Amino acid sequence: MTCIADFFTYETTKSVVVKSWTIGIINRIVQLLIIAYFIGWVFIHEKAYQVRDTAIESSVMTKVKGFGQYNSKVMDVADYVTPPQGSSVFVIITKLITTENQTAGLCPENDMKYACQRDENCGKKDTRYGILTGRCIRYNATVRTCEIRGWCPPEVDTIPAPIMHEAENFTIFIKNSIRFPLFNFEKGNLLTNADPNYIKSCRFHPVDHPYCPIFRLGDVVKMADQDFIKLANKGGVLGIKIGWICDLDKSNDLCNPQYSFTRLDSISEKNKVSQGYNFRYAKYYKKEDGTEYRTLLKAFGIRIDVIVYGSAGKFNMIPTLINMVAAFTSVGVGTVLCDIILLNFLKGAEQYKAKKFEEVTDFHIQAAASQSQELYKSNTTLTFRSEEKQSTDSGSFSLGT
Amino acid sequence: MTCIADFFTYETTKSVVVKSWTIGIINRIVQLLIIAYFIGWVFIHEKAYQVRDTAIESSVMTKVKGFGQYNSKVMDVADYVTPPQGSSVFVIITKLITTENQTAGLCPENDMKYACQRDENCGKKDTRYGILTGRCIRYNATVRTCEIRGWCPPEVDTIPAPIMHEAENFTIFIKNSIRFPLFNFEKGNLLTNADPNYIKSCRFHPVDHPYCPIFRLGDVVKMADQDFIKLANKGGVLGIKIGWICDLDKSNDLCNPQYSFTRLDSISEKNKVSQGYNFRYAKYYKKEDGTEYRTLLKAFGIRIDVIVYGSAGKFNMIPTLINMVAAFTSVGVGTVLCDIILLNFLKGAEQYKAKKFEEVTDFHIQAAASQSQELYKSNTTLTFRSEEKQSTDSGSFSLGT
Amino acid sequence: MTCIADFFTYETTKSVVVKSWTIGIINRIVQLLIIAYFIGWVFIHEKAYQVRDTAIESSVMTKVKGFGQYNSKVMDVADYVTPPQGSSVFVIITKLITTENQTAGLCPENDMKYACQRDENCGKKDTRYGILTGRCIRYNATVRTCEIRGWCPPEVDTIPAPIMHEAENFTIFIKNSIRFPLFNFEKGNLLTNADPNYIKSCRFHPVDHPYCPIFRLGDVVKMADQDFIKLANKGGVLGIKIGWICDLDKSNDLCNPQYSFTRLDSISEKNKVSQGYNFRYAKYYKKEDGTEYRTLLKAFGIRIDVIVYGSAGKFNMIPTLINMVAAFTSVGVGTVLCDIILLNFLKGAEQYKAKKFEEVTDFHIQAAASQSQELYKSNTTLTFRSEEKQSTDSGSFSLGT
Repeated sequence: MTCIADFFTYETTKSVVVKSWTIGIINRIVQLLIIAYFIGWVFIHEKAYQVRDTAIESSVMTKVKGFGQYNSKVMDVADYVTPPQGSSVFVIITKLITTENQTAGLCPENDMKYACQRDENCGKKDTRYGILTGRCIRYNATVRTCEIRGWCPPEVDTIPAPIMHEAENFTIFIKNSIRFPLFNFEKGNLLTNADPNYIKSCRFHPVDHPYCPIFRLGDVVKMADQDFIKLANKGGVLGIKIGWICDLDKSNDLCNPQYSFTRLDSISEKNKVSQGYNFRYAKYYKKEDGTEYRTLLKAFGIRIDVIVYGSAGKFNMIPTLINMVAAFTSVGVGTVLCDIILLNFLKGAEQYKAKKFEEVTDFHIQAAASQSQELYKSNTTLTFRSEEKQSTDSGSFSLGT
Repeated sequence: MTCIADFFTYETTKSVVVKSWTIGIINRIVQLLIIAYFIGWVFIHEKAYQVRDTAIESSVMTKVKGFGQYNSKVMDVADYVTPPQGSSVFVIITKLITTENQTAGLCPENDMKYACQRDENCGKKDTRYGILTGRCIRYNATVRTCEIRGWCPPEVDTIPAPIMHEAENFTIFIKNSIRFPLFNFEKGNLLTNADPNYIKSCRFHPVDHPYCPIFRLGDVVKMADQDFIKLANKGGVLGIKIGWICDLDKSNDLCNPQYSFTRLDSISEKNKVSQGYNFRYAKYYKKEDGTEYRTLLKAFGIRIDVIVYGSAGKFNMIPTLINMVAAFTSVGVGTVLCDIILLNFLKGAEQYKAKKFEEVTDFHIQAAASQSQELYKSNTTLTFRSEEKQSTDSGSFSLGT
Repeated sequence: MTCIADFFTYETTKSVVVKSWTIGIINRIVQLLIIAYFIGWVFIHEKAYQVRDTAIESSVMTKVKGFGQYNSKVMDVADYVTPPQGSSVFVIITKLITTENQTAGLCPENDMKYACQRDENCGKKDTRYGILTGRCIRYNATVRTCEIRGWCPPEVDTIPAPIMHEAENFTIFIKNSIRFPLFNFEKGNLLTNADPNYIKSCRFHPVDHPYCPIFRLGDVVKMADQDFIKLANKGGVLGIKIGWICDLDKSNDLCNPQYSFTRLDSISEKNKVSQGYNFRYAKYYKKEDGTEYRTLLKAFGIRIDVIVYGSAGKFNMIPTLINMVAAFTSVGVGTVLCDIILLNFLKGAEQYKAKKFEEVTDFHIQAAASQSQELYKSNTTLTFRSEEKQSTDSGSFSLGT
């Protein structure tokens, strides 16, 4: 029974209350700052009362529209967008260097680096367009170059090619569905409260049409602080970022996408070595006799990466409780600072020390133990030696007869 | 020496032990709740004794199998899967609108929106299939439409096309290797303890065959709560999610993939504007005379995104220690609540206050200081004025002669 | 006024200072360990004074170079790299099984599993290469097999094909731009302080050329601990990981990429079922009469996944303050351990308990309350019954007349 009674006790710290204006005001200001930090930053700004879902599930579909004219031919989406599947990463080709009717075989290099007089001038290594055979053959009436085995004739990519200026007016339609699995919350960037006709005909504008899902390529380039002519000429990578930062405690209508635009390969431009963005691909054909030939295309273009990011928060009891407890206990942290001030810099610091600290030494303990034995023996004499000896000897309190 | 002795001291708080059943029981219940929270939630549920690796490395390979019949032609994987590389995102084409033998040139629009009488009716803007030349030309015996420059003849995508019903029986084989770099733990979704013949011939079923890596497309559609006919007709994006949530303290055999299925673009379906998923691509051909022509394909299909996520945990000393310390110190947090009850709502609250709080004021300090000086002077008179004045004057204890 | 004065008070815990060498040394050692942990691990190793950005933005462009010879034909990048766009995931084809001139139609199966005598031996299900028509037809002079509807003639992939040995010398140029949006910090893997000629001609080496952006495929395979011949023959997935772990408090020149190489599908190799990496694709051709035919290619290759990860840290006041407060308060946690030692295992533990704990019971409170009333009544008699009864009866201190 005593054991149970001993168990159901409550232990709380003994406190010293200092009634001093100086330290009192400091204490309350420090506490106020801590509370203000928790309420202002942790709760209101960081929304610590919410549980957050950052594992956003996203699906992006894109569709480019527009017609360009290049080399007196009309180019449509199937011609200038690659890959064609309408995924989140795609290239809009703005410049093409076309080498038609290449067949596998032997031919002279067209790079004058490989000009030669005799076979001995030609090694056996790779050139840009094929493998040297080691022979020096006639390139034209006057010049001989090393022979290569490869796709012939070799590409000539030194002649400047025009860009497809119409690309500036191409439009990119982005359909983005997101889901926060933790809250089973779904939303799309085609806002359901928007007029279907509006969505079909609008053009994105950061201020006037911030939720329009159709982007003019020229605008995207401009919003990423780039120059269209330069970009179309050398190629580059633009990012269209869609941010979904949602507070699901508020109305769902306020959970809307935020679009931002950036050039993703901007740093590479500072290096002279390899600027821009281009790639080579080929279209393969066959003659009636079965021999294969191809059209090699060196394509410069604007690669668009649609990047979706986001997080959603919703009120939840557990983080709220944890953070409130953290807030309450943190208020006590101010004590560390105030103790330093109280015990060191305040007038009467020694007295405060004497009040706060109670000293006990090995010696005292042993003395008290022997005394208490003595007490039992000679019960008549009132011998009381206080073991309450303040740590700083600020005053000597001895009680004896 | 004294300095060193002063340094090697130990400071602990002086505590008041309240032997009261009421507050004792409240105290122990609060402590029990806190301990239960830490053991039950933090340690057992959240596995706070583990270090977690969420940076899962994953590699996905896919292979679709099956034959379809479309427009009286047999379609195999090379025909209906794009891109063909077996990556984690691919499209299974279920419907095709084919426009054969398109050549770059001039032709009348086939959309009756562009019907015209005179050249003046035709502007110079883009239509869906080309650029208006500004001329009004004969479309058929009775109708004249505006002339376009583009790929001719233009596509007609208003005629309903059938779907490839066999697609429902296509199978998707998914090979997924994952690695948790922190623990250098590797595993694949082809479980090594499974029979190779089983893996080759099984079909995934959430209950009967949860670790079979072969998925029937019709089942995937059904498990994502979709209707195959509708989906195949309009196109859509399905997600096959593979979750690897592993407790590496247990046997590796228990670290298995969990498959789940969802429609990723479901929200877009609620909007009337742009439903489904389709894209256009072209196959290019050349005639013997060198003129290029193409087959334009508008493909509707089911895009599959294989999404791998996961995290693994393993026992580690550092988080265990940190969380145990957090648990121990949090037990003390109950004091805040108990103090409020003890000092405000309990019978005898004033007395408890008097015991817990020891008051010291500027005045007292100064008084005590002057007294102690007095004491030294007149050592014979026993003048003792306790500065132990309880903060709440609950009782007046004065000891004097 | 009193109310305000009461508010501006400061409450601090009353402490017991134990002047014992044993517990003093234990105390200081525990505190030292905690401080060492915070300074060494939390601040220096974990850089808790920094704010971290893990949402790295990255853009990857790749370009493969080199010529291979396969089936006595020279293969260039447009032939063996797919997809061609220079994205972060691409395949270098190392082995090809080519089936030319396939047309849609009817033909006998070439798999001897489908050898037959009569139509009854042939079902109506799918084979690997087409749909059985249910007829048994002549395959060659001696053998009859079931007829299939599909692309004819069917592929024969059982004949061993050579690999393209030159692939070992192909080079992969990787251009990677990253950005830490929180700090608006950009960097690329083409280090700006590097010589452009060096960047053009170097080859990556983990020790000698750790920042060279050009990787020889053979080296990548070797650094991932793989055998090139085996890998090229069966196909596989390699990861080139680029890590950007940056301390932005230091010079930007120290924020450099770290390359590492791994085989991503290594675990799949342990399973007998489906080893390696291959996929089928087709090139489509048309005859002058309009009939379509195709070349089916079964490609084995090395898929390269360029994976960029990273995080950057920079000094920030908020985490510094929070962690310093955490460090200071954690020093107090040592008290828990020391209290256990002090109150249980030390010589004189009972006396220490008596000093630390002050007991107060329901009864005492009530007694004290009644006594204090008595005191007021009979002010002459000095009746003082201390409610300071130590919790452990280590000594009996009674003061009375």
